[in-house]
Amino acid sequence: MQTNLNIQPLFDTEIEVLCPATVANLVCGFDILGMALQDPSDRIRMRLSKEPGIRIQHTDEYKLPTEPAQNVAGAALLDLLQAIPEPVGIEISITKEIKPGSGLGSSAASAAGAVVGANYLLGKPFSDEDLVRFAMAGEKVASGVKHADNITPCILGGVTLIRSIFPLDIIGLSAPPLQVTVVHPQIEVRTSDARQILRKEVLLKDAIRQWGNIAGLVAGFLKEDYELIGRSLEDVIIEPVRSILIPGFDEVKQRSKAAGALGGGISGSGPSIFMLSKEAATANSIAEIMKQVYTQLGIESKVYVTSINSKGCEVRITG
Amino acid sequence: MQTNLNIQPLFDTEIEVLCPATVANLVCGFDILGMALQDPSDRIRMRLSKEPGIRIQHTDEYKLPTEPAQNVAGAALLDLLQAIPEPVGIEISITKEIKPGSGLGSSAASAAGAVVGANYLLGKPFSDEDLVRFAMAGEKVASGVKHADNITPCILGGVTLIRSIFPLDIIGLSAPPLQVTVVHPQIEVRTSDARQILRKEVLLKDAIRQWGNIAGLVAGFLKEDYELIGRSLEDVIIEPVRSILIPGFDEVKQRSKAAGALGGGISGSGPSIFMLSKEAATANSIAEIMKQVYTQLGIESKVYVTSINSKGCEVRITG
Repeated sequence: MQTNLNIQPLFDTEIEVLCPATVANLVCGFDILGMALQDPSDRIRMRLSKEPGIRIQHTDEYKLPTEPAQNVAGAALLDLLQAIPEPVGIEISITKEIKPGSGLGSSAASAAGAVVGANYLLGKPFSDEDLVRFAMAGEKVASGVKHADNITPCILGGVTLIRSIFPLDIIGLSAPPLQVTVVHPQIEVRTSDARQILRKEVLLKDAIRQWGNIAGLVAGFLKEDYELIGRSLEDVIIEPVRSILIPGFDEVKQRSKAAGALGGGISGSGPSIFMLSKEAATANSIAEIMKQVYTQLGIESKVYVTSINSKGCEVRITG
Repeated sequence: MQTNLNIQPLFDTEIEVLCPATVANLVCGFDILGMALQDPSDRIRMRLSKEPGIRIQHTDEYKLPTEPAQNVAGAALLDLLQAIPEPVGIEISITKEIKPGSGLGSSAASAAGAVVGANYLLGKPFSDEDLVRFAMAGEKVASGVKHADNITPCILGGVTLIRSIFPLDIIGLSAPPLQVTVVHPQIEVRTSDARQILRKEVLLKDAIRQWGNIAGLVAGFLKEDYELIGRSLEDVIIEPVRSILIPGFDEVKQRSKAAGALGGGISGSGPSIFMLSKEAATANSIAEIMKQVYTQLGIESKVYVTSINSKGCEVRITG
């Protein structure tokens, strides 16, 4: 429990939190980089209650668990509530538009949105870092691992770097305007499977190539150098292994780059694929390519043409 | 041979090139990051001659070879001369202050200075990238490997990133003012030995930690965030292996950080050690610590208190 928390609960306020989808890894930045998207977003309605306990409802089709300890948002809230001295109840209603298992940070959106909302309703006693830590308890329920690469951009917005997870060190990175085209082929890739197929050791020469690209990508973002961003979007370690799990990956990537994409790759652990472009027209052409590829493969898909969300989770007062 | 080169030889001009020492790797950025120093510097005097061939003199104590193909500066110049259509001769006199084998880019200074000087005397037909490529032929003579992590900052100045070596992609990074304290313990660590003791494979989890630090360091430089630079100066892959070759390393590092250093580590492949500080007073205290450590170990050492050289090799007309 933290001391000196300034808690001022808003018992008569109802809020809605818009919780953005996120792209983790950003090609070369496995486990350290992430980016928030304008679209799609989950919506979470919340209010405090004087009756202790967390009561969860879902208003979508996904039949997610409502038992707090087994629910991603619930587990994150349980972690947050442990940090405050007075018992308080939370009523929460979740409408997911980010499909679970899409690779677009669906569980992070629930966990991050829930703790951002609760923090607002408690008078904002917690820092962004505190919120990332609470939300990681939600990610642990979803994937068994306390990772923060979706949660961090979901809470902070924009492009984020997790320099270190123990101790937690998160850094917001500025970036130039970027168009993002995302395709979610409707196949299942489990995060745990996508993690298990990775080798535990990598060649030093591949690691050097990867960290050259990561350094280039970070410099490209901060210097607003689109060409450098494009050249740096190369992953010689994770993508060659994981892309095997995603039918159509190579064709989407190759044709998107031919159509003018700066580059792109697997979103998180997949199966969604994202491509970055400078121009909206390019982003639209890429959307057409993505649809075509999956239509020809006979795989249903959902395509988003969107951009970077610079705000992260947004709280609106609804009552 | 390149076409369309605009060569305008200055046969009647004599120049002196100041060639800065450089720190390669910058702790976490093995093979990709480097930084030029104000001090020490080599001095190279050069002039063109109508009589083809490269004639090398040394005005120092190091007894380096004068046969062009076996001399670092000579080999770089041979590579440059192959790129121009008209035969031309070069007279070159080298005064080394950067001791060979110090880990401070001694061979890079000779190779980079020679090609920067020759480019000036030929009317600047070549780009910085061309010059890096020519100078790499000199590095190959010195260490058997065409590496560019000392050459690039030596030519460009400041902090530089080599995103990729094939194809060559070099990026200048801005950085806030930094004080640099360097100690060169007078022991021999051969670059080839320092390279051979590295493992060919690394743990993925270590690689992830390393690229988090690299991303943090690049962001710290570009955002001028001293704290972030300090936190990112951690190497979990190379330093634990190579530091064993350098007596006193752990004590220098620990006491320097206790005295206020942002951080630091092995310069290149050693044996020199560098420490970064925000304040000049801190840099001076660290110099005292370094001297003490090696005096106590009974190892002679040379200490430099300097700063980042933002200009790289500098050409002065001397006749």
